[in-house]
Amino acid sequence: MRILVINPNTTASMTEKIAASARRIASPGVEIVARNPTHGPASIEGYYDEAMCLQGVMDIIHGTPAFDAVVIACFDDTGLDAARCLTDRPVVGIGEAGFHMASMISNKFSVVTTLARSVPALEHNLHRYGLWARCARVRSSGVAVLELEDPASDASARINEQIRLAITEDHAEAIVLGCAGMTDLTDRLTAQHGLPVLDGVSCAVTLCEAMARLGLRNSPVGGYAPVPAAKLPNRPVADTARIGRG
Amino acid sequence: MRILVINPNTTASMTEKIAASARRIASPGVEIVARNPTHGPASIEGYYDEAMCLQGVMDIIHGTPAFDAVVIACFDDTGLDAARCLTDRPVVGIGEAGFHMASMISNKFSVVTTLARSVPALEHNLHRYGLWARCARVRSSGVAVLELEDPASDASARINEQIRLAITEDHAEAIVLGCAGMTDLTDRLTAQHGLPVLDGVSCAVTLCEAMARLGLRNSPVGGYAPVPAAKLPNRPVADTARIGRG
Amino acid sequence: MRILVINPNTTASMTEKIAASARRIASPGVEIVARNPTHGPASIEGYYDEAMCLQGVMDIIHGTPAFDAVVIACFDDTGLDAARCLTDRPVVGIGEAGFHMASMISNKFSVVTTLARSVPALEHNLHRYGLWARCARVRSSGVAVLELEDPASDASARINEQIRLAITEDHAEAIVLGCAGMTDLTDRLTAQHGLPVLDGVSCAVTLCEAMARLGLRNSPVGGYAPVPAAKLPNRPVADTARIGRG
Amino acid sequence: MRILVINPNTTASMTEKIAASARRIASPGVEIVARNPTHGPASIEGYYDEAMCLQGVMDIIHGTPAFDAVVIACFDDTGLDAARCLTDRPVVGIGEAGFHMASMISNKFSVVTTLARSVPALEHNLHRYGLWARCARVRSSGVAVLELEDPASDASARINEQIRLAITEDHAEAIVLGCAGMTDLTDRLTAQHGLPVLDGVSCAVTLCEAMARLGLRNSPVGGYAPVPAAKLPNRPVADTARIGRG
Amino acid sequence: MRILVINPNTTASMTEKIAASARRIASPGVEIVARNPTHGPASIEGYYDEAMCLQGVMDIIHGTPAFDAVVIACFDDTGLDAARCLTDRPVVGIGEAGFHMASMISNKFSVVTTLARSVPALEHNLHRYGLWARCARVRSSGVAVLELEDPASDASARINEQIRLAITEDHAEAIVLGCAGMTDLTDRLTAQHGLPVLDGVSCAVTLCEAMARLGLRNSPVGGYAPVPAAKLPNRPVADTARIGRG
Amino acid sequence: MRILVINPNTTASMTEKIAASARRIASPGVEIVARNPTHGPASIEGYYDEAMCLQGVMDIIHGTPAFDAVVIACFDDTGLDAARCLTDRPVVGIGEAGFHMASMISNKFSVVTTLARSVPALEHNLHRYGLWARCARVRSSGVAVLELEDPASDASARINEQIRLAITEDHAEAIVLGCAGMTDLTDRLTAQHGLPVLDGVSCAVTLCEAMARLGLRNSPVGGYAPVPAAKLPNRPVADTARIGRG
Repeated sequence: MRILVINPNTTASMTEKIAASARRIASPGVEIVARNPTHGPASIEGYYDEAMCLQGVMDIIHGTPAFDAVVIACFDDTGLDAARCLTDRPVVGIGEAGFHMASMISNKFSVVTTLARSVPALEHNLHRYGLWARCARVRSSGVAVLELEDPASDASARINEQIRLAITEDHAEAIVLGCAGMTDLTDRLTAQHGLPVLDGVSCAVTLCEAMARLGLRNSPVGGYAPVPAAKLPNRPVADTARIGRG
Repeated sequence: MRILVINPNTTASMTEKIAASARRIASPGVEIVARNPTHGPASIEGYYDEAMCLQGVMDIIHGTPAFDAVVIACFDDTGLDAARCLTDRPVVGIGEAGFHMASMISNKFSVVTTLARSVPALEHNLHRYGLWARCARVRSSGVAVLELEDPASDASARINEQIRLAITEDHAEAIVLGCAGMTDLTDRLTAQHGLPVLDGVSCAVTLCEAMARLGLRNSPVGGYAPVPAAKLPNRPVADTARIGRG
Repeated sequence: MRILVINPNTTASMTEKIAASARRIASPGVEIVARNPTHGPASIEGYYDEAMCLQGVMDIIHGTPAFDAVVIACFDDTGLDAARCLTDRPVVGIGEAGFHMASMISNKFSVVTTLARSVPALEHNLHRYGLWARCARVRSSGVAVLELEDPASDASARINEQIRLAITEDHAEAIVLGCAGMTDLTDRLTAQHGLPVLDGVSCAVTLCEAMARLGLRNSPVGGYAPVPAAKLPNRPVADTARIGRG
Repeated sequence: MRILVINPNTTASMTEKIAASARRIASPGVEIVARNPTHGPASIEGYYDEAMCLQGVMDIIHGTPAFDAVVIACFDDTGLDAARCLTDRPVVGIGEAGFHMASMISNKFSVVTTLARSVPALEHNLHRYGLWARCARVRSSGVAVLELEDPASDASARINEQIRLAITEDHAEAIVLGCAGMTDLTDRLTAQHGLPVLDGVSCAVTLCEAMARLGLRNSPVGGYAPVPAAKLPNRPVADTARIGRG
Repeated sequence: MRILVINPNTTASMTEKIAASARRIASPGVEIVARNPTHGPASIEGYYDEAMCLQGVMDIIHGTPAFDAVVIACFDDTGLDAARCLTDRPVVGIGEAGFHMASMISNKFSVVTTLARSVPALEHNLHRYGLWARCARVRSSGVAVLELEDPASDASARINEQIRLAITEDHAEAIVLGCAGMTDLTDRLTAQHGLPVLDGVSCAVTLCEAMARLGLRNSPVGGYAPVPAAKLPNRPVADTARIGRG
Repeated sequence: MRILVINPNTTASMTEKIAASARRIASPGVEIVARNPTHGPASIEGYYDEAMCLQGVMDIIHGTPAFDAVVIACFDDTGLDAARCLTDRPVVGIGEAGFHMASMISNKFSVVTTLARSVPALEHNLHRYGLWARCARVRSSGVAVLELEDPASDASARINEQIRLAITEDHAEAIVLGCAGMTDLTDRLTAQHGLPVLDGVSCAVTLCEAMARLGLRNSPVGGYAPVPAAKLPNRPVADTARIGRG
């Protein structure tokens, strides 16, 4: 099995961290192909960045020879619906993956994400997915995506504070970390706070494996009907960075 | 890995069919332990049957020595919340498993279940899970659970008719089959109707594997807080039928 | 008229307190028959206790010769739907009774219940009943059910504090006390806090009288269709404690 | 106990029919005082009629010396919220009464009302009360309110047809009749259609009795805070018709 | 173009302030006709006042010779639905106008209104309009409507405090001022708080112009079907104060 | 005043039709600058096309020297949120414009759009905007966007049929035409069907004028916070077609 993991931003160090998390959780024999666009925003923080990375995300899907499932490794689940029109293979966003998993081990969960500007997009997604009622609150930590790559920042303290508030004020029973760049924090935070802390990257990889094994395909009728051939790009899509074995 | 699959009714032939489906989808090395209560209703059709099988379901969980995850193999997800207080291991209902999976490959899905008396309980569950907005409609086929075990019945024709209506009237993009007894029908129905038809048993087994591999635990705070020891049964719980290798 | 009041837990002192409240509000000529199971949890605190008392609740309904309506005297409304399949007479849970009454004298109400582990079940019920939008918040006082039976506990102070917060923070216009064991507190709390404080037991008894006088019956079609005779117990159901005149 | 029943329209024959229904269901010793305004619309069909009868409804409440509860006997529940600011005694609309009662004996109900122009107001009310999720559909029969007073009309056939459709198309488990003028039809329709058919007038009277016996008062804080004395009318309010013993 | 602006209360100084605001924003050539009833409440604060001003509002619409659109200049949007049955010309409430406009420049907004007793009516409106999900919170400042006319009051400080809390606690991205009497505060408050602060009067006037230019008419089918001629008043409706050029 | 009208697809004939509609409704002195991208999909039908036109839409906004408001003239409101981060001037989608306007002249409306694949995106938008509850149904006519440009197609008949069904089955009180290419049909359809039929382009232009005159700005806090300068494109954005006077 081969899972394409797309980091929609252009920060290669983040793609590597995401790939490492994906490989850590993947079953033996599952190949993780991690990629990011070469053009576009260096981090996805809000609606504009989402819009500006979509071309790159679609190009990666269109230009990758063969895969059994796709992970969109941005917590905004950027381009999720469009991707499902471009391939019939399962496509899972790390946001939705975290929400679905959290809703099966808790009565309600809170999300701790990066900047305030990202909160409304996540709230919109929760509404679309139908899981809004299961989310106690989407909290911003005030930590920018790329600060997570900087060991000297106080990102950790600010994330801890929001988790603490999610427990005492929101009565959250689980926490979903709202950024692909937080993928390496879950074990420590679960132990520290005494409740499940979920990372979307790991959740999405296992969901992709499950869906691929079930042989699920995106529905060919309605909103995910395949893009007509005439609308597919015929320009070369070579401008994507490739990381890993794929 | 060892997954406990509980058929909440007492019909052993159905437990065997469920176990076979579970083993077909399970990864190599995953042991499926399938069980059903020896006392209680022969089929779960509506609220009363749900209430009357709960003692048996709890006894099975309490009396089974070791497992990594639990599947509640009744589409009503009977006892799901109570089970999550009794064990910290992931517990997945086949109803919710089908709903979550369908919501990641379609914009909206319809459910085709057995009798009209079961419809409100499924609708309630969809509300609780938050996925009501993703469900176009819950349809009853008028087929009783045990008719599904009878090759001479016209169950198949009636299920086909409801799937047809779900496509033309509900504009459903996927179908979730609403009974554990329909677990062997998905491949044929997917091919016949040209859209994804999902079986909750298979979905739940793969979700359990995913959650177990992620190391997820039911939240210890809030509604799934562990049952205090003083409230756990100390009577022998030997009155459960055991099927399979476990 | 004869109203069967079921305390789903096995604590006889609590059954007596509930029966006393029920008799205080019942119209002249209305007989209150109060019962509790002899086996099962001593208090209903959360999902697991709910599941474990259901057999006893159903046995009491099945084994009681004649009644005009039933009160389920647990604030979780345990077994409400199942009971409506077992008898065509009105069945009212004390939770729903409090919610319906509060929604006719206030724009929104808060609930003050016992332990945090009970909150999600009440929130689920409010969603099912459709009255979620009318509830400002479900608050736990941290008081265990059986502490309410203990005059030495500081239960009263903790309940007062939550009512105070419901007024100042939730802007609640009425309070519903979320436990059958609080049935004797309403008058004092109404006077003390200057807004309506409702007790589900009293509300449910008067609703039962109203529904019985109207001749209402549980709907014979759909989710409350009568349990088929073949599924009814034929074992003796003598293991229930009976309190009072019935 | 004394219950003030207000027919918000000026049609005295309808007030009499409503009063008769109210007296039939009232407990022994409960006095029914039925009144209607002398000025205003002859029937309440839609938003404009609702607006134009409010002055009369408020005058009746203000000018009636003593009562223990009030029934607003128009299915639009016209002036319900305003009335609760004018008196601390329970005020129950026949629309909400039917909805609350139906939601305790069925999983979902449909409403069969008069003209299409009345449907949106009822849908708005169901949203406000929070019971929208429990209502399968609000159906208009195309029968004008005053046709119900005319024995020669085919009103009965048109109402029957909508009930039939509510059962087959909406899968309604109970029917609420959406007009005070239909108050005498319930028994026949229940027998004919084989499911509960509820009349709001009877439901409201029994709810008023229940609430009065419980000693419930409209909340003095928030939206139902008493109207300041300076805003109360000091003009004589003698222009109301009075029917019955009160 | 001629826009009828109705202040539903009888306070002429407030009608003048509203008219001035309306004229400030109106396009050249748009005539603003501002009126208020001569009988009825001096301020609209809660449900009872709403009910008592409706007759006057309807009389003004019925008695004004010609207009292209109507503004209901009370933040409760009193009589909005009834008015749409009385004229086919667009009728816009200043509450809805503010909500619609705010929802196009922010992800969510908070409302700052006068007294606590007015909050539930605004919340009901938001539910009816469907915009509840876009409103973070409806806050009361504790300022009575007529205090806004008194320069010596500390109304301004209390409104500022609620805007501050809306930003820090509700994470509101815009503020809608919840009273026609606040119409002159927007510019100062926008500058002071650094986010859009909207006044319903201005919003409603521009919406009326837009709808009139589009030639939109209230739907003749369903809930806004025209009032039958037989139900229209034939009494003189001369008891209305008229302000301005109209 | 200068309004930038963006047709997100590359079909210039459609841009011209949209521009003509916009100019017909615009106030005297308002300049309409209509543009479309030179690269990207020729029509926007579903999620993939939406994703692929975003770069072009953002480039047009970024590269247009001065404007007072922006219309996104695609019924999916493609890029609406992103655009609001790129400029502080009001940005109105023709979908939301139609929904807001329809909700002020009807109790509920239906949408008649092009292909089935576009329906879920519109339903998602209605959920996000909060106006889902006001929409009776989103209907597809089976007419492709570019068929609307072909006089020989039977597009008109198929649109008529869906409007007819919206009236008889959905009980819609108004119709919103769900495609910018239908902008010239409203007058004829309103006359033919006897209820308001709205065109999003006209609605959006008048809303833009209203918002510009009010001086409204996209909120600088939260989800529409301005894109940081470092993330703005510095490449030339000359690859856009320009139509009209601007």
